[in-house]
Amino acid sequence: MKKVVTFGEIMLKLSTLDHQRFIQASQMNVEYAGAEANVAVSLANFGLPVSYVTKVPENDFGQAACNTLKAYGVDTNFVAKGGDRLGIYFAEKGASQRPSKVVYDRKNSAIATAEADDFNWRTIFEDAQWFHFTGITPALGPNVAEICLQACKQAKKMGLTVSCDLNYRSKLWSREDARQTMSRLAEYIDICIANESDISDVFGIASEQNDIEHGKLDVETYDAIAAELMGKFPFRMVAITKRESLSADDNNWSASLYMRGECFHSRRYHIHIVDRIGSGDSFAAGLIFGLVNGYEPQRVIDFATAASCLKHSVEGDFNLVSKAEVESLVNNNYTGRIQR
Amino acid sequence: MKKVVTFGEIMLKLSTLDHQRFIQASQMNVEYAGAEANVAVSLANFGLPVSYVTKVPENDFGQAACNTLKAYGVDTNFVAKGGDRLGIYFAEKGASQRPSKVVYDRKNSAIATAEADDFNWRTIFEDAQWFHFTGITPALGPNVAEICLQACKQAKKMGLTVSCDLNYRSKLWSREDARQTMSRLAEYIDICIANESDISDVFGIASEQNDIEHGKLDVETYDAIAAELMGKFPFRMVAITKRESLSADDNNWSASLYMRGECFHSRRYHIHIVDRIGSGDSFAAGLIFGLVNGYEPQRVIDFATAASCLKHSVEGDFNLVSKAEVESLVNNNYTGRIQR
Amino acid sequence: MKKVVTFGEIMLKLSTLDHQRFIQASQMNVEYAGAEANVAVSLANFGLPVSYVTKVPENDFGQAACNTLKAYGVDTNFVAKGGDRLGIYFAEKGASQRPSKVVYDRKNSAIATAEADDFNWRTIFEDAQWFHFTGITPALGPNVAEICLQACKQAKKMGLTVSCDLNYRSKLWSREDARQTMSRLAEYIDICIANESDISDVFGIASEQNDIEHGKLDVETYDAIAAELMGKFPFRMVAITKRESLSADDNNWSASLYMRGECFHSRRYHIHIVDRIGSGDSFAAGLIFGLVNGYEPQRVIDFATAASCLKHSVEGDFNLVSKAEVESLVNNNYTGRIQR
Amino acid sequence: MKKVVTFGEIMLKLSTLDHQRFIQASQMNVEYAGAEANVAVSLANFGLPVSYVTKVPENDFGQAACNTLKAYGVDTNFVAKGGDRLGIYFAEKGASQRPSKVVYDRKNSAIATAEADDFNWRTIFEDAQWFHFTGITPALGPNVAEICLQACKQAKKMGLTVSCDLNYRSKLWSREDARQTMSRLAEYIDICIANESDISDVFGIASEQNDIEHGKLDVETYDAIAAELMGKFPFRMVAITKRESLSADDNNWSASLYMRGECFHSRRYHIHIVDRIGSGDSFAAGLIFGLVNGYEPQRVIDFATAASCLKHSVEGDFNLVSKAEVESLVNNNYTGRIQR
Amino acid sequence: MKKVVTFGEIMLKLSTLDHQRFIQASQMNVEYAGAEANVAVSLANFGLPVSYVTKVPENDFGQAACNTLKAYGVDTNFVAKGGDRLGIYFAEKGASQRPSKVVYDRKNSAIATAEADDFNWRTIFEDAQWFHFTGITPALGPNVAEICLQACKQAKKMGLTVSCDLNYRSKLWSREDARQTMSRLAEYIDICIANESDISDVFGIASEQNDIEHGKLDVETYDAIAAELMGKFPFRMVAITKRESLSADDNNWSASLYMRGECFHSRRYHIHIVDRIGSGDSFAAGLIFGLVNGYEPQRVIDFATAASCLKHSVEGDFNLVSKAEVESLVNNNYTGRIQR
Amino acid sequence: MKKVVTFGEIMLKLSTLDHQRFIQASQMNVEYAGAEANVAVSLANFGLPVSYVTKVPENDFGQAACNTLKAYGVDTNFVAKGGDRLGIYFAEKGASQRPSKVVYDRKNSAIATAEADDFNWRTIFEDAQWFHFTGITPALGPNVAEICLQACKQAKKMGLTVSCDLNYRSKLWSREDARQTMSRLAEYIDICIANESDISDVFGIASEQNDIEHGKLDVETYDAIAAELMGKFPFRMVAITKRESLSADDNNWSASLYMRGECFHSRRYHIHIVDRIGSGDSFAAGLIFGLVNGYEPQRVIDFATAASCLKHSVEGDFNLVSKAEVESLVNNNYTGRIQR
Repeated sequence: MKKVVTFGEIMLKLSTLDHQRFIQASQMNVEYAGAEANVAVSLANFGLPVSYVTKVPENDFGQAACNTLKAYGVDTNFVAKGGDRLGIYFAEKGASQRPSKVVYDRKNSAIATAEADDFNWRTIFEDAQWFHFTGITPALGPNVAEICLQACKQAKKMGLTVSCDLNYRSKLWSREDARQTMSRLAEYIDICIANESDISDVFGIASEQNDIEHGKLDVETYDAIAAELMGKFPFRMVAITKRESLSADDNNWSASLYMRGECFHSRRYHIHIVDRIGSGDSFAAGLIFGLVNGYEPQRVIDFATAASCLKHSVEGDFNLVSKAEVESLVNNNYTGRIQR
Repeated sequence: MKKVVTFGEIMLKLSTLDHQRFIQASQMNVEYAGAEANVAVSLANFGLPVSYVTKVPENDFGQAACNTLKAYGVDTNFVAKGGDRLGIYFAEKGASQRPSKVVYDRKNSAIATAEADDFNWRTIFEDAQWFHFTGITPALGPNVAEICLQACKQAKKMGLTVSCDLNYRSKLWSREDARQTMSRLAEYIDICIANESDISDVFGIASEQNDIEHGKLDVETYDAIAAELMGKFPFRMVAITKRESLSADDNNWSASLYMRGECFHSRRYHIHIVDRIGSGDSFAAGLIFGLVNGYEPQRVIDFATAASCLKHSVEGDFNLVSKAEVESLVNNNYTGRIQR
Repeated sequence: MKKVVTFGEIMLKLSTLDHQRFIQASQMNVEYAGAEANVAVSLANFGLPVSYVTKVPENDFGQAACNTLKAYGVDTNFVAKGGDRLGIYFAEKGASQRPSKVVYDRKNSAIATAEADDFNWRTIFEDAQWFHFTGITPALGPNVAEICLQACKQAKKMGLTVSCDLNYRSKLWSREDARQTMSRLAEYIDICIANESDISDVFGIASEQNDIEHGKLDVETYDAIAAELMGKFPFRMVAITKRESLSADDNNWSASLYMRGECFHSRRYHIHIVDRIGSGDSFAAGLIFGLVNGYEPQRVIDFATAASCLKHSVEGDFNLVSKAEVESLVNNNYTGRIQR
Repeated sequence: MKKVVTFGEIMLKLSTLDHQRFIQASQMNVEYAGAEANVAVSLANFGLPVSYVTKVPENDFGQAACNTLKAYGVDTNFVAKGGDRLGIYFAEKGASQRPSKVVYDRKNSAIATAEADDFNWRTIFEDAQWFHFTGITPALGPNVAEICLQACKQAKKMGLTVSCDLNYRSKLWSREDARQTMSRLAEYIDICIANESDISDVFGIASEQNDIEHGKLDVETYDAIAAELMGKFPFRMVAITKRESLSADDNNWSASLYMRGECFHSRRYHIHIVDRIGSGDSFAAGLIFGLVNGYEPQRVIDFATAASCLKHSVEGDFNLVSKAEVESLVNNNYTGRIQR
Repeated sequence: MKKVVTFGEIMLKLSTLDHQRFIQASQMNVEYAGAEANVAVSLANFGLPVSYVTKVPENDFGQAACNTLKAYGVDTNFVAKGGDRLGIYFAEKGASQRPSKVVYDRKNSAIATAEADDFNWRTIFEDAQWFHFTGITPALGPNVAEICLQACKQAKKMGLTVSCDLNYRSKLWSREDARQTMSRLAEYIDICIANESDISDVFGIASEQNDIEHGKLDVETYDAIAAELMGKFPFRMVAITKRESLSADDNNWSASLYMRGECFHSRRYHIHIVDRIGSGDSFAAGLIFGLVNGYEPQRVIDFATAASCLKHSVEGDFNLVSKAEVESLVNNNYTGRIQR
Repeated sequence: MKKVVTFGEIMLKLSTLDHQRFIQASQMNVEYAGAEANVAVSLANFGLPVSYVTKVPENDFGQAACNTLKAYGVDTNFVAKGGDRLGIYFAEKGASQRPSKVVYDRKNSAIATAEADDFNWRTIFEDAQWFHFTGITPALGPNVAEICLQACKQAKKMGLTVSCDLNYRSKLWSREDARQTMSRLAEYIDICIANESDISDVFGIASEQNDIEHGKLDVETYDAIAAELMGKFPFRMVAITKRESLSADDNNWSASLYMRGECFHSRRYHIHIVDRIGSGDSFAAGLIFGLVNGYEPQRVIDFATAASCLKHSVEGDFNLVSKAEVESLVNNNYTGRIQR
């Protein structure tokens, strides 16, 4: 099977233990993660060949980031080397009414200061069938946005499917910058993945009925949003994830897939959260996996939602679950009995 | 008071930290546990004299297993020494929709390769009033099943009460093998402890109305199952535990005791799980404790169910709670206020 | 702004990891905490100048206790030095139906054996506007009760507001002793903070309708209790916290403020608990902060309740949240979405 | 073989991790230890029946202390229950020029406040051949000194051998008190174990040539000291350990045994220290083991010194080495090659 | 550059923390290691393409073993899947006079029960220039010895260089079995790596002057041993490592290379040990790396010895040092100043 | 006593556990440290009033850095707030022949991008008697060098003593830049602290006889270097530390003080290292402490050298030892016996 390519930033992730706040930490967990890397790892766990493209510094942390990806079977042959530093992000886990907190220290990272000739997309896309990135990648800077555009153009030229998770990050760019850049990139995107906030923040398409902050979602209004989005951009499919945030510990989670004028809705899972960072990425991976394997649309959205449901039970950003585990959940086995 | 004897396998238990998956582990917790050892420790915690019978290798791990039991006051004087290795089991804790996972590496363990003359049951049963084992013990191999049978015969000869928790493990033997062996042993068993799956797997007695996978239990049908079981085998009592698995974190838990044609039902506890491994064993220990002390049947089932309810809140396989703590829960204090 | 002074015992707190029981512990967490110290740290976190008064031994543990307070910006210039030992308390965290457990080893501590001339209240109260202590302080011994009385008198003489959290601890003194001593101190207390058990234990004022053990609270009956309390003692305000203990993991939490014949009720929070020790202290700190800043009564009780709601999500006794975080929760953002 | 009885205080030991100072600790290791308990555990590890006598409070920490002893096979049936608290000691590990540091918090412990009728020595000494205690035990208070004296008298009456390690602790009593009490006890002691400081501190017998602080020991002068000691008291044997403290990490370690006018000197080991607390106790255990088994004097001192040499390589106060491991070192295998 | 292939067993390694003994462990470190895997990782760290051949079970531990290798850049495409279990080895770290201890639990592992058609050596050796294994591999069983022989034959047929580290393990086979099997394999081995004990144990060639146990090595006698070895077998080169075991913490370490009648001796390093397991493997990797790169013989032995010297300072079995770090040590920078 | 002011960068320090390499780390220790902050903490530990001046971002990490300083009693009232990020440095601990490794990620930190008006030196220096900085501070950038110059000028104007530790860091600036900037600053420096490399790197003054890399120091040549240095710059005193790096674990350490034409040499300590980072800073603190207290020159250098000797035994960058502990070492007690 031809490979999937994802492109973005992998960072050193430093997270406090248990539910400690940053101010209390005398130790932190060390991981390496990033939205598109998370997608790559999840796809590799499902058994797909995946290549991850980024730039890391030539030091131990750049090396450790690559080692982590390689451990899970992600190809890192196209990772450029150079630049000053690996971006860092700090995470503390919320609980009950206290939200989780992320502090970015990712400016001037190797990938944020990368240049066009760090990446030879023609070579990278040989043997590839799919190109995935998220809205975080172009938000890293105009140079990276430009590289992203080049990658999209080359991908289309070589017949790859292009998917993008909007992933709006207000700490990286303004809504205006996001809208302008993402609108240009949208011309090359086949499959758009987003949640309601992303769609509102990036493309200004919103429904007034929903109350995201309080987690009350009027599911029907999503259909209208998706329709508007597909009318405005040449997306072949739109997938929307729906999170009802009851507390930092408990969420409802579901998703819908829109294509050819039809809507496919997943089951809604009530989740007791272990770690929700990376759950959107695990959804994207599940979606790509289903589509690459030619699943029926309903099975695609079921697989992607079950995969991302399971991610919430796994520590760290990576969705360390197998295809079989996802399918077991899809097939109604969701009560968490011991496997022995 | 005369002692209780339990017989089975104690293993090295290696479990991942927090909710980590095996694939992530850079450290694992080290414990020593096993179904019948768990029963022994719980009985010792309640204040009963208990002797545990098994075979362990003459190395540090066999020694550590015995030390652990001795620490909790379990007599290990009848533990045979020899053989190649201590059995191992690996455990990762599930969460939400992700089930807990157990990997056995227990083949060729000292006890699995034990021989009849490793144990002198006549000596072991001096000063004893009760013999307890579970369906795991005979599943370790035909030799161990045979030893088990000898123990049962000797126990009956010396006037001990014999109890058995069916504990069917599909990774150890087939249903057919289980049925055949357990049916022979059943002739010597006074008290049969089981959950619905066990009864169905081992003796083929099942009700069609229940949907165990999804945790929906029609409580009434249990009475019929128990009746059928008691009709088929010469059990004096049958105790059935009922788990409704809402998720890997949340279960409902209750139990019933059947004797002399009467049914005694416990309260149903809604439990937020810390660690559910060993909860069945803690139920058996509570039941034995109540019966040995001559409690009324209702108090017996209340005590056993409360004991095993509390086990779900304790890390590790052992039920590290006192008789007083169980009684406090029986007496309606179940809200978890701080004791200070 | 003029400072707040709190007075009491800071202890070495040794707590088991995760949900381990004392009997399992091979390591324990080391912290330094105590009811009035917790209030001081929370006030410092909100930005108020605070001075903490106690006595600690001249050894590493007395030093470490002071260092911990200084780290959070609490002034320790009036901490007396001397005596034999720092009091210790051991804590294990409950779960589900198993209650948390606290073991005190605080007898003969430096503060419990302190003498009147260890503290020069006239100097301590310079630049101060508020004096806070809890019922634990006079319970440490007649000498400390006497010191407490002197402090109260001096505080009133110098025009400070005096607040007291009843905090009845049955392991420290009898109800009779508490009633006698607290009744004397009550003459100097402007603001009384308590929960229903405290009021019943210390002042014998109780309502029969409530069933504290089972967490079912008839909210209306609190108004009568508060009225009776204000009728009996010259308190200007009474604040009552209401905990419904559904399990060791899940509580409902709310509070009411009574003043000038009016009742102000907070929202009721459903909390999934990380660590509830110190939540009462965080409520007192929120209350003091609101009153010192001249908030409207409704905003005072809202702020105090939200602050203490958040405390339940923080590991350790200190409420490590900022004024902005509390206000965000007051302003309806209570779903725990990630901040990034 | 008849059992050995040891009598003293077992404490909760809280030690900082690695080489952390108390002031840095956010976690501490939890152990249970004490001089005479250490001797008991070491003897049990060598395979002797041992009974430990002390008094512990009826709480989780008293229980945990007993569990620890039971784990290693020490009989705790004669441990009295009651009193307020378990004594505590804090330990931080030194390095290079920085000494290790011990802080005692053992006043008012259960054993320090024990009374004569907590112990029935006649019953305790049934089946016993040996009674061992150290100078720490009578230093706990006049009541304990008196109990110690009763034990010695009863031991002699019942024909037991009595051994005592002088173990002078200046934080527990003055030299004068020590001399007076120990001189009385000495009348019943068969075997006196000590280092040069102890002999000087307790009995005022010292040589001027040695420079203990700087670890330079003139080995010959020990013979004179031992001779003087044996002249003054009716000891049948005297054993002296000799530590040359080159740094907190590196010590030379040797010992001598004096009996019937003869001197037996061990090899001198150069030790790179992992944990030296408990090394004196491990020497006493080695000595007792050798004598109980009727070894030749040279083999006795060789075994005891090798045992205590190995203790320096083991974390914690207990000497977790087997008889075979000690003998391997005695037999010249001291280069630490991997056993595989 | 053409790849190196190594073949052997990778195990789950469970090691106690710091210097804890097995009997004390409440947690263990989790790693995956094995002699030939260690060589592979070290070569990959130096920048060589390496492929590792083994068989692992299709469970999480087999997967984790492969992931670990992949993380360091070792190709695992030729790892066979199947069998029952991954072999386990337990390790506790010695100190001073206490030796390190290894307990094997590797019987019936996937590789030990592998069959010839699990490996297609013709395919495996495409693009390869070198085949390396150690004496542990054929010791796993006659079937593995046979597979080893087939691999050697195929390697020679395809023109690869074959190297073997004798690595005698008395717990796996007798000297007689080793001699017989290794003598057959020796016919195909170009480069033999060993220490003095190995040569004596496997081939019965020994010098009487050396006293390995006490770490006193008469360096000159090695030349005779090497000469005898090269006279007896068709080795093109022999490399001998020399360890003087002063204690479990301190060793002297050096090596010699014999070829074409010449001797090349390395510097002798005095090493303060962090972890010595895997040091022999790191020597083999250094040797192979130097030879593959066509270094002069003196530089080969200098590089290999420096590489393995550094391994002693690294936690775990893998030599996590770069070519540049080894060369820095070769070039006289061996004082351990901070690099900043 | 008037306060000491130090000025520089405090960083988030992330260090691997034990001797792990960066590439292995799954957790890292979290500390906050920096050369001048280390000096401040050490002075506070000795009992001096100290104020630390820097700039930190307004986030949790800036706050935590200040909290850490406040915990040890360092005044942080003059710490400016703002800028993007807290500088980070990563540290892995070497062993034996493997050097420790430091990776800086400190570009664009709050202090590196500070501006002159962030600091009002006139106010800062009120009540101050001493100003200390190191060569790292001006190396952070021309703006910081300029601020440093202003501080020096203001310090001299207000009669403060100015001390500077050369602390050359090749990763921050070139020798040429260092020489130019430090030569300008030298005009205001009363006391210059350095090691031989610093003097050579910054001022080009070197002796050819010494062989720093190999730790062989010809002590006499230092006198010539100091004389040359004092001839070239208006330093009133020069203090030189001398490290002989035998391995990453073992160093010899001594120092000399030059003033008024006289040389004062300390004892030479052989040190087994726990953590050597911060040892130079602890020397500077000891020197300042001695001079501020008017010690005799010999006592000054003895105190400073003993203080920094002890630092090598303490984990972390801060010298957590008291004045009494330093004096005990000065007074010949250097064998590391347990204090109990």
